[in-house]
Amino acid sequence: MTDPASTALLTDHYELTMLAGALRDGTADRECTFEVFTRRLPDGRRYGVACGIERVLEAVEAFRFGDAELQALARDGVCDEDTLSWLREYRFRGRIDGYPEGELYFPGSPLLTVQATFAEAVLLETVILSILNHDSAIAAAAARMVSAANGRRIIEMGSRRAHEAAAVTAARAAYLAGFTATSNLQAGSRYGIPTSGTSAHSFTLLHDSERSAFEAQVAALGTGTALLVDTYDISRGIETAVEVAGTELGAIRIDSGDVGALARQAREQLDSLGATGTRIVVSGDLDEYSIAALRAEPVDGYGVGTSLVTGSGAPTAGLVYKLVEVEGKPVAKRSSHKESRGGRKGALRTHKGTGTALEEIVYSATPGATPPEAGPHDRFVPIPLMRNGERVDDLPTLEDNRQRLRHALVSVPWEGLKLSAGEPAIPTVFPDRGA
Amino acid sequence: MTDPASTALLTDHYELTMLAGALRDGTADRECTFEVFTRRLPDGRRYGVACGIERVLEAVEAFRFGDAELQALARDGVCDEDTLSWLREYRFRGRIDGYPEGELYFPGSPLLTVQATFAEAVLLETVILSILNHDSAIAAAAARMVSAANGRRIIEMGSRRAHEAAAVTAARAAYLAGFTATSNLQAGSRYGIPTSGTSAHSFTLLHDSERSAFEAQVAALGTGTALLVDTYDISRGIETAVEVAGTELGAIRIDSGDVGALARQAREQLDSLGATGTRIVVSGDLDEYSIAALRAEPVDGYGVGTSLVTGSGAPTAGLVYKLVEVEGKPVAKRSSHKESRGGRKGALRTHKGTGTALEEIVYSATPGATPPEAGPHDRFVPIPLMRNGERVDDLPTLEDNRQRLRHALVSVPWEGLKLSAGEPAIPTVFPDRGA
Repeated sequence: MTDPASTALLTDHYELTMLAGALRDGTADRECTFEVFTRRLPDGRRYGVACGIERVLEAVEAFRFGDAELQALARDGVCDEDTLSWLREYRFRGRIDGYPEGELYFPGSPLLTVQATFAEAVLLETVILSILNHDSAIAAAAARMVSAANGRRIIEMGSRRAHEAAAVTAARAAYLAGFTATSNLQAGSRYGIPTSGTSAHSFTLLHDSERSAFEAQVAALGTGTALLVDTYDISRGIETAVEVAGTELGAIRIDSGDVGALARQAREQLDSLGATGTRIVVSGDLDEYSIAALRAEPVDGYGVGTSLVTGSGAPTAGLVYKLVEVEGKPVAKRSSHKESRGGRKGALRTHKGTGTALEEIVYSATPGATPPEAGPHDRFVPIPLMRNGERVDDLPTLEDNRQRLRHALVSVPWEGLKLSAGEPAIPTVFPDRGA
Repeated sequence: MTDPASTALLTDHYELTMLAGALRDGTADRECTFEVFTRRLPDGRRYGVACGIERVLEAVEAFRFGDAELQALARDGVCDEDTLSWLREYRFRGRIDGYPEGELYFPGSPLLTVQATFAEAVLLETVILSILNHDSAIAAAAARMVSAANGRRIIEMGSRRAHEAAAVTAARAAYLAGFTATSNLQAGSRYGIPTSGTSAHSFTLLHDSERSAFEAQVAALGTGTALLVDTYDISRGIETAVEVAGTELGAIRIDSGDVGALARQAREQLDSLGATGTRIVVSGDLDEYSIAALRAEPVDGYGVGTSLVTGSGAPTAGLVYKLVEVEGKPVAKRSSHKESRGGRKGALRTHKGTGTALEEIVYSATPGATPPEAGPHDRFVPIPLMRNGERVDDLPTLEDNRQRLRHALVSVPWEGLKLSAGEPAIPTVFPDRGA
């Protein structure tokens, strides 16, 4: 059994064959820069949301080859003895800069910059991309849903529709993006995210009557709980709910049917029963579009599942990890439309005096290049993340980054918040196009 | 830190609040049957592929609450003292039947049947669905790709586009479905799946010339390796590749551009250089449709990434976990179109004498019901998986199940193998519709 805490085998076979080849001919020690970026935003999205950076740092720290990992590689004939000996001593000693979590990114933004020897950096390609492609895809979808919810409570409850481990980090990404809570207990325990949940239809069906189910739930959770009223007949369910819990009932939840129309009827009925403070929570196949369509309805909260954990049509962010510099010299693939811009890069986000973002200036940061001048409202986006393989001090927390995204979305030009497909919210400008 | 080997917190909050309510009013001990099924196949698919069953059994065995898990629940106020005490003693003691991995399923097929007390079974909802929804979605997409590849080699290399843990099980699902190998080393180590990989563009860019990169790779991996020829100019790349490795070169890989046209040119060039045995492998945003479109081209193998790990448009299988029976009596939600059929069920797959599948007969298996009669070519689909919380002996292996799917796909009526959206390959019939 390999060590579940090691990330070293979350790696593609070819990274080890490249390592073996490079160790043999001496190129393994060349100082390299790899860059994570995307050529385009998926699905006509207007912005990407950096997410998973903190998890990348943890994965890099845990990228160590112990006996079990080395034995697995030897047994499967993945690499030769010299390479195995080198791996035994492996730990990342390079530097990493990147966009903080919650920051927006655009096509060509240098989301993560990894500087180390080829050997040290090439091994990290897969695990870095896995984390960033997943977490950023979910965060981008979540941010659109939070915008659509327009200040109403929105709860993540998609765990059952995602891989069991992906579900935990999807909950984290949703919280970063402004979701109020998650149903996922591991996410609560691991990341300190508020969890919530009351009951499913099975709880009602288990009981001899809807009334006895509601009584059991109120006895256990108090009158402030949310009762699920659509197992049998919704209006009878609401009647029973208020009879059992009184007008202090916290909330009702509707999980099926035309939830907009049902919410209106429910509001009227609750008010007529005197339960004017009882909130209405809706769930059931919601996405950013249906959430936006419910804006005019008397809905107090949303529960979102499938569309969140699947990135609402864009389950992966399309980020790539490309070698852009070798021993200080820019390199780039040249055969096709899938071109990259060589050279290490920086990014300056410019803003109007009002705070509205203007451009993403992605400039050459190769040794000797001069960075552009920042105006009083502009800021350089990447921050230092690792030096000599050690995480820098005082990295921002998940709560910090949650605020960061909230502020970043306020800075986006109005068209950039539209849910429809279109151009990125701000253009990316490459002043050193020749580089 | 909670125990990474425990699956107990891969659970939605509401399962514990339901448990608390049911413990309090005595309904927790009622004997229940929960069923996993789907109401429809996603995206107009013709069949589903059962995958993740083995992982579900592992997750159920590892579903234990240790000190760390209980402390997390207490700290977050998820449940009361009585419930925590009950959880400390929890282990699943019920029975599970289900479709073996590699078996096809259709709307309404009873993919998994869990029988236990309400308390024991309700807690498993999320982790069971997470696993089955993810793994089955990937397996279904993979099976379509394998059909499209029509016997040519097909390699899974999508890890970088999926959550790092999901990537490992996606590789497993792809192998079950007939993929030849995976790039993912953890999948190789954990599940014994063949891994493969040679080099990326970064390896060529690292070197002073394409030639020196090819020389390094051939020195490390021999002439049987696959050289990536599209970093600069493909025809010059092929020329150099054959100069370096000789006509015994194993393969070339093309990762960008119009791969069909490029494969034709490459075949001609390789043949003219005498490398008539050198295979051509293509990769780069392939899915089942582009694989099928390449059938007439001289392609020897495919590398598939993004589309595989994202389920090619259907990243989750849409499976639900519903309470269908309480103390021997069928129960079902009744308020909307999202109805379920109550009662424990069995499934009989009927076939013509030729072996072609005819119908999925989903019948009542409540105590006292009579199962339908099986003809000589028919078979009952579910198998026993767990008894008294213990896995039954001699469950089929991954290799067994890989063969099972291969045979099952041969039994599908011709229209059922079409890639286009449409009706399920065979109809599901409910003879006990009243139940």
